[in-house]
Amino acid sequence: EIVSAVEAHLADGPLKGKRIVVTSGPTHEPIDPVRYIANRSSGAQGTAIARALAAMGAEVVFVTGPAEVPPPEGVKVVLIQTAQEMMEAVEAALPADAGVFAAAVADWHVEGTSDRKLKKSKDGLPTLSFAENPDILKTISQRTEGRPALVVGFAAETNDVLAHATAKRARKGCDWIVANDVSPGTGIMGGTENAVTLITDDGAEDWPRMGKDAVAARLAKRIAAALA
Amino acid sequence: EIVSAVEAHLADGPLKGKRIVVTSGPTHEPIDPVRYIANRSSGAQGTAIARALAAMGAEVVFVTGPAEVPPPEGVKVVLIQTAQEMMEAVEAALPADAGVFAAAVADWHVEGTSDRKLKKSKDGLPTLSFAENPDILKTISQRTEGRPALVVGFAAETNDVLAHATAKRARKGCDWIVANDVSPGTGIMGGTENAVTLITDDGAEDWPRMGKDAVAARLAKRIAAALA
Repeated sequence: EIVSAVEAHLADGPLKGKRIVVTSGPTHEPIDPVRYIANRSSGAQGTAIARALAAMGAEVVFVTGPAEVPPPEGVKVVLIQTAQEMMEAVEAALPADAGVFAAAVADWHVEGTSDRKLKKSKDGLPTLSFAENPDILKTISQRTEGRPALVVGFAAETNDVLAHATAKRARKGCDWIVANDVSPGTGIMGGTENAVTLITDDGAEDWPRMGKDAVAARLAKRIAAALA
Repeated sequence: EIVSAVEAHLADGPLKGKRIVVTSGPTHEPIDPVRYIANRSSGAQGTAIARALAAMGAEVVFVTGPAEVPPPEGVKVVLIQTAQEMMEAVEAALPADAGVFAAAVADWHVEGTSDRKLKKSKDGLPTLSFAENPDILKTISQRTEGRPALVVGFAAETNDVLAHATAKRARKGCDWIVANDVSPGTGIMGGTENAVTLITDDGAEDWPRMGKDAVAARLAKRIAAALA
């Protein structure tokens, strides 16, 4: 569902003429009509990135789950709920020069979702079985045709951040990983600041803790340089 | 966690001197630091009820999960995440003249919640086991000491609304049930209107579809009459 069209007049800037897909927010995976499984994500970092890219002139397709923060202006907004819908929206948005996959996508969905509200069973407990969701980052990274020139993934980790994120980059086949520590103690999840490590072919680069807008601006500049 | 105190000057009205606990919103049951199970609830109806009760002079303790709408002014707000926390907050708010349990409380929580982000296991799928949450409506309804004079439950159903809600009233032991049909087709969940059936000792009373504020005002009047 498209709720706002790209503004006719895109901003001028180093990303003028570049089309970039940005995913953001959580996905919601239904259990039944009243229950769902969600990932904690305010959508703040993904939204800031989309805004920063648009401000530098990019044509941004912003594919977002139900986030807490409103989507930025001047981008094409595609609202989705589930990982499957996000996958389809991303595929539909290609071709693109870059993909920035900042959403906190559920790894699994509930199989055999009920269209009636689950009732407590005799022993009082439900049985949920899960199936894997499409892996958006991996699917796009490993496209043989129409792969964006630059694919950026995110790794939200709670322990061994660098090791997990480096392994994720290799496993998915993306170009960069933006890794961060979302342990409750950091205040990053749901907060206004972020402390990320950018992992590229050149290794890992720790950025100082800064506002999510500042992280977004710095990442957008790097993307512009990479696509130049 | 108490985020706003009751305004020193309570409104005048037929509920002056009455203390009422209202629950609202969804609960979030953590799976790990980044995932949780939630119920769909905007908190709109519970918030409207708390506002209507406060406007009629009641001292309202408003126990709310992470809702989409902001809590009303002039009530004591207690923010919780899980059903267990909601149970404790309600118990702490007693004694009260009435309890209105409008929250969409999760029936289950995930057992053995991980404090690390779950990784895909070898076969790619997680195993979640569930345990029952405390039944807030039933616990309060069946208190032998310090039971509020009026206990009002809610039943959000998707089929056989009247039968399910009538059975729920008997099973829980509450005085009234406010039942509604939250099937996706009705637009009630997440919408501004509601169509409820009030089930009391006198039977079932269908109210016409109206705004959630109007439902709240009508229910508050009935509560005032019952407590008079």
